[in-house]
Amino acid sequence: MKFSTPQTLEQIASLLGIKYVGAADFPVTGMNEIHVVEPGDIVFVDHPKYYDKALNSKATIVLINKKVECPEGKALLISEEPFNDFNKLTKHFRPFVSASASISPSARIGKSTIIQPQVFIGNHVEIGENCLIHPNVTIYDHCVIGNNVQIHAGTVLGSDAFYYKNRPEGFDKLLSGGRVVIEDNVEIGALCTLDKGVTGDTTVKEGSKLDNQVHVGHDTVIGKKCLIASQTGIAGCVVIEDEVTLWGQVGVTSAATIGKKAVVLAQSGVSKSLAGGKTYFGSPADEARVKMKELANLRRIPELLKQKNQQ
Amino acid sequence: MKFSTPQTLEQIASLLGIKYVGAADFPVTGMNEIHVVEPGDIVFVDHPKYYDKALNSKATIVLINKKVECPEGKALLISEEPFNDFNKLTKHFRPFVSASASISPSARIGKSTIIQPQVFIGNHVEIGENCLIHPNVTIYDHCVIGNNVQIHAGTVLGSDAFYYKNRPEGFDKLLSGGRVVIEDNVEIGALCTLDKGVTGDTTVKEGSKLDNQVHVGHDTVIGKKCLIASQTGIAGCVVIEDEVTLWGQVGVTSAATIGKKAVVLAQSGVSKSLAGGKTYFGSPADEARVKMKELANLRRIPELLKQKNQQ
Amino acid sequence: MKFSTPQTLEQIASLLGIKYVGAADFPVTGMNEIHVVEPGDIVFVDHPKYYDKALNSKATIVLINKKVECPEGKALLISEEPFNDFNKLTKHFRPFVSASASISPSARIGKSTIIQPQVFIGNHVEIGENCLIHPNVTIYDHCVIGNNVQIHAGTVLGSDAFYYKNRPEGFDKLLSGGRVVIEDNVEIGALCTLDKGVTGDTTVKEGSKLDNQVHVGHDTVIGKKCLIASQTGIAGCVVIEDEVTLWGQVGVTSAATIGKKAVVLAQSGVSKSLAGGKTYFGSPADEARVKMKELANLRRIPELLKQKNQQ
Repeated sequence: MKFSTPQTLEQIASLLGIKYVGAADFPVTGMNEIHVVEPGDIVFVDHPKYYDKALNSKATIVLINKKVECPEGKALLISEEPFNDFNKLTKHFRPFVSASASISPSARIGKSTIIQPQVFIGNHVEIGENCLIHPNVTIYDHCVIGNNVQIHAGTVLGSDAFYYKNRPEGFDKLLSGGRVVIEDNVEIGALCTLDKGVTGDTTVKEGSKLDNQVHVGHDTVIGKKCLIASQTGIAGCVVIEDEVTLWGQVGVTSAATIGKKAVVLAQSGVSKSLAGGKTYFGSPADEARVKMKELANLRRIPELLKQKNQQ
Repeated sequence: MKFSTPQTLEQIASLLGIKYVGAADFPVTGMNEIHVVEPGDIVFVDHPKYYDKALNSKATIVLINKKVECPEGKALLISEEPFNDFNKLTKHFRPFVSASASISPSARIGKSTIIQPQVFIGNHVEIGENCLIHPNVTIYDHCVIGNNVQIHAGTVLGSDAFYYKNRPEGFDKLLSGGRVVIEDNVEIGALCTLDKGVTGDTTVKEGSKLDNQVHVGHDTVIGKKCLIASQTGIAGCVVIEDEVTLWGQVGVTSAATIGKKAVVLAQSGVSKSLAGGKTYFGSPADEARVKMKELANLRRIPELLKQKNQQ
Repeated sequence: MKFSTPQTLEQIASLLGIKYVGAADFPVTGMNEIHVVEPGDIVFVDHPKYYDKALNSKATIVLINKKVECPEGKALLISEEPFNDFNKLTKHFRPFVSASASISPSARIGKSTIIQPQVFIGNHVEIGENCLIHPNVTIYDHCVIGNNVQIHAGTVLGSDAFYYKNRPEGFDKLLSGGRVVIEDNVEIGALCTLDKGVTGDTTVKEGSKLDNQVHVGHDTVIGKKCLIASQTGIAGCVVIEDEVTLWGQVGVTSAATIGKKAVVLAQSGVSKSLAGGKTYFGSPADEARVKMKELANLRRIPELLKQKNQQ
């Protein structure tokens, strides 16, 4: 197997707590059995009878139980227990994938990523390292997930855009050729839906967090370090800039932009683009202080009516 | 196997690009192995040794590699490669069902329909032709789905009605004996819920499209060519007439009727029946132009208060 | 197997419609094969050749086809068909678990409970008797479910709390160490999410009913006999007292308390604690009669403006 991220000789030796022969930054890109090794691979050998075969194989790193002479252009990892250390590397670098998940052979899954049971992963999906994909998640073809991403149970990434042309004979569907791209350190709650892009990508940028039952439409971009609370719905082609907070059950109309560090209070309906750095409320949403004033004014109508009746 | 739709001799010959002997409209209703064939079935034979057996079987259509005399009341399909052509028909008419889907033996699935992994299909469910059921969908017993229907991941069809009688000792549940019926050319987004009818059916009529996370209550009828956007919730016993559009996060109270071609704007709450052909907004929803005027009036209270204070 | 609830000799005899020898309340805690039986277990024997072995085994209840002398400290169940009656008990007390569900070996599932296909049940989960868990449900580690509970398809119990500390380098997640606890006679609709508690439990008390697509945040407590309609979202640390009704698409802010028998109308936004016994509406929610008056007043602004213009 190839490591999802290339390693150095020193990183591998440090991981195993053993010594090495070669440059500290000697590249290590994977590990394999001796009959299929390639340059960049680690091969292991623990019997003098096979030393030559291992040292002369295509592998450029040899995990060996004796400090022998290092061949030109190669490196050695000196281990008392090459077998055990090889197993340690396998455990460290392989992803854990439940036997009852359905995963396309063309999907790529990074090391230390855990795929729980009954997850569906479509063709050409890429998932980075240290991710945790909870049960019953569905990931459609071509979605891309970064490192340290957690996706809670039942969430759907990559469903089709809700985008139809009204023709006399029925709705004509615009095909969705884009992807869903989830950057590093994002967490997505349970039972969310993120539609794929029609032509571009639906993107959630680095470090943003989505609560449960959030919907994100096609081609929408959610910036870095945003917080999106439960049951919020964001239509297609929306741009949410960095560090925006949307509280629960907010709705955002298509093609709106919400500026950096804006806060939208619960149940608000964003019907147009909003400037950053302010707090909004209402449906349609307005600045919260304006909206609160309006609500206070509404409560003063009785005194106006009373005065009118006295005149 | 029986075809989900009866074919004619000409249709089958045309599908295979081969010639036939018999009436163009000679009925072809399935295909099978020689020991179990019935009238209407295709049987194949490619060796003279077995010609008689095939021609005298109960099958009324013989796929054969020689133009022999056609028995009375039967038809021939003349193929250079009966084996390959028989396989072609199997591929064409069988549905594709993932091995990791859970499907009741009593469910019927039409040709060219694809069932993705981890789909659950209950007893006596009927699904038509050319449908695509995405992963992790759950279809309860007795639901009926037409042709050319697409259902996105995680959606649930046929959960129980939310209908209880409040008795001193606890809620008493009304049993749901109805079905969910999805007509042709409907598309349902990801993570939607459609409850089954209590006594009748919950129905989505021909050509309507539902976005993600839509909820439809028991016995509700959605007309033809409707558009229902994300996170809209429709209670039980609602009638939505044809060509209605409900935008995102709309709520509709139970037993309301929404007239033909009505448009309800996002986040509106439909608390009573609405006439067709108009646009509505607000919670409770009113005609959008009335509601917008109200919002404008609300902003004029300060000038009224100012005048009052001057008097 | 051990029964999920200890039985008495009389209960077992009555279940089988047979006679017994021993005290009516003689304890029966399980049943097993003769080589592994323990005190409290039923063993069966139907051939005189094995009578002694069964009567002298560690089992304290012997299901036997002859009224023999009862050993000291033991009890007999006298059956004409011990084999058939033993099978009846197995069927009665075993849970039915679909082969395509993924269930942790450490989960405990009570008798007569049905687990449908593609359900995921995590470590140390406890599920009581007579429950029905529909397909594609996900239950995270440590959740506890009582008796007579029904959970509809795709629902997620025990996802993480949405609770982050905003640090310059990114959001820091508060770990969720609590549980979700569902008491007896609760029904939860399809595609709901209930987050686990951070330190305590997220609890739904006896007899409450949740519709589809409801979200319940961490550490929230829903009282007895509550009705929560579809698409309602309840934030974390909320207390909903007994017999409260929340209609569709209601939102409740974190840490609010809603008093006993309160009713909150559809689409309302509960922004602060509400006293019991009243009906509320609006976003932010207020008493419904106050809110309806406000809406009526809003419609009288035009006459105030008209009068102003006449002055």
